[in-house]
Amino acid sequence: VLSQLRSGLKPGTPVVLCAKGIETNTGLLLPEVLGEILPQAEPAILSGPSFARDVAKGLPTAVTIAAREAVASRLAVSLGSASFRPYVSEDVTGVALGGAAKNVYAIACGMVEGAGLGESARAAAISRGFAELLRLGAQLGAKSDTLMGLSGLGDLVLTATSMSSRNFALGVGLGRGASLAQLSGPGKPLAEGAATAPALVERAARHGVELPIAEAVAAVLAGKLGVREAADRLLSRPLKAE
Amino acid sequence: VLSQLRSGLKPGTPVVLCAKGIETNTGLLLPEVLGEILPQAEPAILSGPSFARDVAKGLPTAVTIAAREAVASRLAVSLGSASFRPYVSEDVTGVALGGAAKNVYAIACGMVEGAGLGESARAAAISRGFAELLRLGAQLGAKSDTLMGLSGLGDLVLTATSMSSRNFALGVGLGRGASLAQLSGPGKPLAEGAATAPALVERAARHGVELPIAEAVAAVLAGKLGVREAADRLLSRPLKAE
Repeated sequence: VLSQLRSGLKPGTPVVLCAKGIETNTGLLLPEVLGEILPQAEPAILSGPSFARDVAKGLPTAVTIAAREAVASRLAVSLGSASFRPYVSEDVTGVALGGAAKNVYAIACGMVEGAGLGESARAAAISRGFAELLRLGAQLGAKSDTLMGLSGLGDLVLTATSMSSRNFALGVGLGRGASLAQLSGPGKPLAEGAATAPALVERAARHGVELPIAEAVAAVLAGKLGVREAADRLLSRPLKAE
Repeated sequence: VLSQLRSGLKPGTPVVLCAKGIETNTGLLLPEVLGEILPQAEPAILSGPSFARDVAKGLPTAVTIAAREAVASRLAVSLGSASFRPYVSEDVTGVALGGAAKNVYAIACGMVEGAGLGESARAAAISRGFAELLRLGAQLGAKSDTLMGLSGLGDLVLTATSMSSRNFALGVGLGRGASLAQLSGPGKPLAEGAATAPALVERAARHGVELPIAEAVAAVLAGKLGVREAADRLLSRPLKAE
């Protein structure tokens, strides 16, 4: 398929990314991957808090479509409906980053839940995870408005508070003491955040940004750290400014 | 009690506000009220995502304590413990605003839930509500970092996603079609957001800021608008930039 696209895609054709993640090993965000493999494409990305189930039922859903302004506006009209509302943005990087990172923080929140640490601790994990995301976004050229919007914060909240989220559910399993091997594999739901966590940490390190929560998630996934130890480590950081 | 405090409180004594809300009629935030009635007090405020139940059980909880820096640091040490972690801030206004406003947006999210609009729509309501809070905060001199932190976003997420929250539960009842009179009154749990919603809208209007979601909540609470109409009105806004 890719080789057909490579030779057959007319320059300037919009390609709307609907996947979320960071390329393993290279640490590239999906628009960066697209730029490498289909440089003639006009990059666009669709992301936001939207369970497929809710969209299919016609329940109201608000998402973000990012591309160059004229392209994004056109796509918003052609993809939108009375119940499915795409808001336009020009920040392709910010949308891609928010969509990838939220899966990692959803695992963190699931771990807190699974370990029985309470809803207050889960809310703190979302809040502190969001702060990490803003720090990394600033280095990558994402706009903070994007990260604070539907495709960033909105999707993070949805993914990190619902058992319908595969990534949150994976975190709950880890928090109860199961290993990644027990929770994933053929026939089990795919939780993209498990692959994204180490890639996110690596990409951040390249920009000189530390992500303590994402690092803890990656370490637990790799079997190098227990959930309780991870929580203790995060909580024992010195009392200081937020 | 107040007259005793007025005459007996030594100038510079820290007074830590632990309540959340906006004064009806005056639209004042609690530190502003404190400045009027106890001008000799050193104002401080404690807020953040923390159900009393979780704190009492010794589950990990992270909150914000705001005051002048030296005062906030001292209070963080005297109030903190291994599981109850106050992070320091100097933004008394931002902490007060976040704590008050989150109750209003929790009612909005409850309404979405009660009306059966789905988790995606609930996440969109949190995200769009948070955007309103940031716009108002900018006009009141709150720091966006504060609103994005534990006492703003963190507490909003906790309050707006848990049936243990009285304000969220009130919204669920409204969303199912009950009236405020049926859901409140003697013997029923106090949901501060019901009083805060109109006060927040009024205060924002004084600063030239529109809060469509808070306005919808106030109108539903006043019996002037149905939940479905409110949702339709919010969703029928034109497709545009976030």
